[in-house]
Amino acid sequence: MKIAIFPGDGIGPEVTAQARRVLERLDLPRLVLFEGDVGGIAYRRHGHPLPAETLEMARASDAVLFGAVGDPSCDDLPRAMRPEQAILGLRAELGLFANLRPATLFDGLEELSTLRPEIARQIDMLIVRELNGDVYFGDKGIRTLENGDREGWDMMSYSTGEVRRIAELAFRAAQGRRGKVTSVDKANVLETSQVWRDTVIEVAASFPDVTLDHMYVDNAAMQLVRNPGAFDVVVTGNLFGDILSDQASVCVGSIGLLASASLGERQTEFGTFGLYEPIHGSAPDIAGKGWANPMAAILSVAMLLRHSLGREADASRVEAAVAKALADGVRGRDIGGSAGCTEIGDAVIERL
Amino acid sequence: MKIAIFPGDGIGPEVTAQARRVLERLDLPRLVLFEGDVGGIAYRRHGHPLPAETLEMARASDAVLFGAVGDPSCDDLPRAMRPEQAILGLRAELGLFANLRPATLFDGLEELSTLRPEIARQIDMLIVRELNGDVYFGDKGIRTLENGDREGWDMMSYSTGEVRRIAELAFRAAQGRRGKVTSVDKANVLETSQVWRDTVIEVAASFPDVTLDHMYVDNAAMQLVRNPGAFDVVVTGNLFGDILSDQASVCVGSIGLLASASLGERQTEFGTFGLYEPIHGSAPDIAGKGWANPMAAILSVAMLLRHSLGREADASRVEAAVAKALADGVRGRDIGGSAGCTEIGDAVIERL
Ligand SMILES: CC(C)[C@H](C(=O)O)[C@@H](O)C(=O)O
Ligand SMILES: CC(C)[C@H](C(=O)O)[C@@H](O)C(=O)O
Repeated sequence: MKIAIFPGDGIGPEVTAQARRVLERLDLPRLVLFEGDVGGIAYRRHGHPLPAETLEMARASDAVLFGAVGDPSCDDLPRAMRPEQAILGLRAELGLFANLRPATLFDGLEELSTLRPEIARQIDMLIVRELNGDVYFGDKGIRTLENGDREGWDMMSYSTGEVRRIAELAFRAAQGRRGKVTSVDKANVLETSQVWRDTVIEVAASFPDVTLDHMYVDNAAMQLVRNPGAFDVVVTGNLFGDILSDQASVCVGSIGLLASASLGERQTEFGTFGLYEPIHGSAPDIAGKGWANPMAAILSVAMLLRHSLGREADASRVEAAVAKALADGVRGRDIGGSAGCTEIGDAVIERL
Repeated sequence: MKIAIFPGDGIGPEVTAQARRVLERLDLPRLVLFEGDVGGIAYRRHGHPLPAETLEMARASDAVLFGAVGDPSCDDLPRAMRPEQAILGLRAELGLFANLRPATLFDGLEELSTLRPEIARQIDMLIVRELNGDVYFGDKGIRTLENGDREGWDMMSYSTGEVRRIAELAFRAAQGRRGKVTSVDKANVLETSQVWRDTVIEVAASFPDVTLDHMYVDNAAMQLVRNPGAFDVVVTGNLFGDILSDQASVCVGSIGLLASASLGERQTEFGTFGLYEPIHGSAPDIAGKGWANPMAAILSVAMLLRHSLGREADASRVEAAVAKALADGVRGRDIGGSAGCTEIGDAVIERL
């Protein structure tokens, strides 16, 4: 079982160090760990946010555990050299087309959400975001118009093939949950969304046990505030998914507790190849202080065990240990406590 | 003062009827009112959701008071004939480039928001959404790829000229408020956003009394839940504005109480030409029952008085009458009361 660990920038190294400790504690058979550079640190060391060696390491692995990228000292670099390009590059190069983000409230953490407790408590959804297409990866550029104005442009698109594979994944996920898929688009304005919607409807025919509804993205942003408990699986494109998944995350309180999986099409010996990362960013303001909460990184390990290594029992063990630590009052600074990064790592490992 | 009233579909006619009564009560000098068809009703009567007569009427007026469009019986029409095209057509044909959406909580209505009262109470923002550009009005289509797949595509773009006029409007609005502009984009991914951001920074130089910050759209969607009180003026493009303005609206509770203005460049004898409409849709499920809450339509009249007719005192009078009615416990069904549409109209008129 080959896992590539890319700690990245800011608090990335701190939180992945704790996640790594958890992984090592599980005594997985034949576990091999590599570490590689991505983001700002990779730019400084190798002149590129996603060096060829890093990409090779990812390709040779069964799964990638990713920390965070983002480094204010790179703000003035041309876009192609900025840390965020590492994550976009990994998604494109590794064909990571499906981003899975579960959002649920942990018992007893209602006070973290700005939503009323009775609303927040109902949240239990999975956002499935397409990650290889849309306006993210289309042609783009800046041109000068006849009147001398500059114009920035980006091509948005989705093809039936791209939509089909993400929709199928969403419907399968719904079969293991409450059996409901909400597809989010803007079909009243966009042709991209029209193809999206037509294709999702086609795919739905093969999943008679799952109910499907469609929602415009503006309405979805409203319903996520108004009645988030009504969502089960939400499937949407790259751009809308970027917005809605972050909105959903914050609805359950601290994003320091949320993990995500980005899955590819490649099947490994044990499961599906994927990249796993906490939702939170590199938080440069607290980097190196030992204050970061590693729970999201640790929960990313749980997703990795489940999807890429086929170790459901271990995944549940890790999740239970985190839940137990929270129930026992172990709280990072991001959620009103004072426990440091290593201390939280210790607390989770004790409860494994 | 020539006002075109376009009641539209569903509850549109009911709510605009009450708004019209309020307008007529103000004894404006030389007020002339016309009514025209838009949306599903226009399609059924004239074969087009935005008939030429309607457009002419709008062009000949100082302001348009708009109800709502949307009619389930039109769902199967080709997109160009669907009711929503009326609103897109009016925006394009009339050059309505700036959508203004104030969002504030009415005193005593904290219980309507799903946000915690202490969070909801702090909300006092103005969302300024660009309305004539972006992926809404770019080239678009559906093509067949070499592998036989269908692909939907839409061109997203912004030019410096388009950004400059909306940014200037946002900065001017901030001068009359708390002096803060947050520009929302996705400049880490989109060239459209890069031009957006560069131009907003340029415009900011002429407004040294206003502070500017930039936020990625995913982060903005989070902050609108986490700390909405921190926003003053938010300026953003057409697509992000569609999503964020609806999200912001729902944060303050009932969208039955929120109005919006869409302003053009044309100056009339009295102010700026604009179209005014409630945020809510046509709500076909309750149409004709007399249950709709006309407060948002009435508050649209206040915005119309302010921006297009230069009647600030009358605008404030209307807003005060609505606030008074709410304070006196006049509540529509959408906000937990039982007052009907006409009853609410009466209540507001009594308090004018
Ligand atoms: C860093 C950025 C390019 C990225 C995205 O927009 O996809 C991030 O916001 C995310 O959601 O992982
Ligand atoms: C009806 C639709 C085309 C429209 C939009 O997306 O602009 C609506 O959502 C709005 O915000 O006024």
